[in-house]
Amino acid sequence: MSDLRKDPIVGRWVIIATERGRRPTDFRPEVQKVTGPDSCPFCEGNESQTTPEILAYREPESTPDGPGWRVRVVPNKFPALQIEGELQKRGDGIYDMMAGIGAHEVIIESPKHHISTAALTETEVRDVLWVYRERLLDLRNDRRFVHGMIFKNVGSAAGASLEHTHSQLIVTPIVPITVWEEMTGALEFFNYRGRCIYCDMLHQEAASKKRIVLDTEHFMAFCPYAARFPFETWIVPKRHSSHYEQLDQTELEDLASVLRTSIARLETVLDRPPYNYILHTAPFDHSDVPHYHWHIEIMPRLTKVAGFEWGSGFYINPMPPEQAASFLRHA
Amino acid sequence: MSDLRKDPIVGRWVIIATERGRRPTDFRPEVQKVTGPDSCPFCEGNESQTTPEILAYREPESTPDGPGWRVRVVPNKFPALQIEGELQKRGDGIYDMMAGIGAHEVIIESPKHHISTAALTETEVRDVLWVYRERLLDLRNDRRFVHGMIFKNVGSAAGASLEHTHSQLIVTPIVPITVWEEMTGALEFFNYRGRCIYCDMLHQEAASKKRIVLDTEHFMAFCPYAARFPFETWIVPKRHSSHYEQLDQTELEDLASVLRTSIARLETVLDRPPYNYILHTAPFDHSDVPHYHWHIEIMPRLTKVAGFEWGSGFYINPMPPEQAASFLRHA
Repeated sequence: MSDLRKDPIVGRWVIIATERGRRPTDFRPEVQKVTGPDSCPFCEGNESQTTPEILAYREPESTPDGPGWRVRVVPNKFPALQIEGELQKRGDGIYDMMAGIGAHEVIIESPKHHISTAALTETEVRDVLWVYRERLLDLRNDRRFVHGMIFKNVGSAAGASLEHTHSQLIVTPIVPITVWEEMTGALEFFNYRGRCIYCDMLHQEAASKKRIVLDTEHFMAFCPYAARFPFETWIVPKRHSSHYEQLDQTELEDLASVLRTSIARLETVLDRPPYNYILHTAPFDHSDVPHYHWHIEIMPRLTKVAGFEWGSGFYINPMPPEQAASFLRHA
Repeated sequence: MSDLRKDPIVGRWVIIATERGRRPTDFRPEVQKVTGPDSCPFCEGNESQTTPEILAYREPESTPDGPGWRVRVVPNKFPALQIEGELQKRGDGIYDMMAGIGAHEVIIESPKHHISTAALTETEVRDVLWVYRERLLDLRNDRRFVHGMIFKNVGSAAGASLEHTHSQLIVTPIVPITVWEEMTGALEFFNYRGRCIYCDMLHQEAASKKRIVLDTEHFMAFCPYAARFPFETWIVPKRHSSHYEQLDQTELEDLASVLRTSIARLETVLDRPPYNYILHTAPFDHSDVPHYHWHIEIMPRLTKVAGFEWGSGFYINPMPPEQAASFLRHA
């Protein structure tokens, strides 16, 4: 069990593990090992090594927690937040806290020990993207929860501890501060101009062309104007839509192709870099809003984040996005 | 030369290097080497290997850029921002940018190749802290600049590239977003309650005692209630003061002792962890304000920051601050 605690100054929430008895030596930094193919708990045949599955796309004759699946969703074995319990919101003087309630799931993207999204077929990527949608649609029914964040860590430097291609979903009882800041910033723009800032960005990127990586019927992948990281790439749907759950079948097919190709190009240009991708989508407790626009941010993790970045929120990016996009376009 | 570009949604600024010709292979992640004592440019006798000094505390008969100094400040050889030039603020459609103007200085904390603040004497730490003050007082006279951020990176995992004990100062023409968020959050509290939130925090910590690491006449060091990182420690002055530049001689002596002891204890408990410390102080263009309170945040870098933290701003801290403080109190 964990606590959710709020920083009283900036409103940032922190998940604090409350089990006692950990020693300082448990935190000595080590070279983190990424578990390889031997005895991988995510490989087909090893289903008993995970917690029981929540959802799987399977062959008709197969049985849960056995072989015969294409994508499989299981609760995280070491969840950051626990699914059962009440929020117990309370104060402690100037501080605010609640119980560490939420959902923490793992989406195993393939039964085979592939280590990259780019190694999957487009059909396989489609299954993964549809599972994202299905899990969000399910979890938004739980009134304790307000936001679902889907993300993927690839490589030790990006925080992965298992090699087998997988993503994660963390559902929180609080709107994450970065989502809140995006919603607020986008709303300010909307109030001032009456338009969605992401739609405006798509228009400007389409006109200038210099930061575009891929441009399809339903999506644009581009390196953002104020990219924090070298080769940072955003995938934005052309149809205005605040919630990823609103994705339709036609868009799904296009998105699978764009995501897979964007990652394949990053892996070609950067020789399989560590990276994170994050699905940014509006909170559950907002209905479809005109000012927010769901999208995916892919962030290669090639530069170190040090004191200046932590203290200031400024980032130093040694690769102009125009140049990064050009490399990725021609990969 | 670099550009300063603003993310149009959340208002985060990014420093983008504009020299062309870097190749993707320049960004392949490598195990970063921290330069050791051999041919260290910061050691006494090697002054010619740095850019000419801006300030030094020296023996009366010594000459600039020669031996005989105790603390030495030099411009960073590879500055993130350039000191000369005009801001040239301009727009590009929905985007905003300006020239990458600012100051980027290195404070070499000792002529000897010490690698830790804890290895310095209290008098030596005092000199360093007084230099911080002197540089901020000097740079705030430049009307192009609005904020000075002093920080220290120790160890490769915390972003250091040189072992010799040193800190850095980056002065920006924009208030950094994290400083802005702190100022805004603290102002909201002040508007509601008529008190400084940091002063309130000091009172509550003094009453509960459970997160205190050190408690002296002028300062309190404690593990914050919503600590993002295991063993995160804040040093907060007891006298309300918004700007570090307002530090007086009596406080200086106390701060040198508290900072040195806090770091020594972290190094004992965690076996010389990588860490960052960051001086949080109000922008130059604010006069003394009743709602903000300067302080130092020390952040050991023992846990990985992965997709969830990047996407959400939530942190997962496996060490309750109450327990961390207890280890540090008894170290």
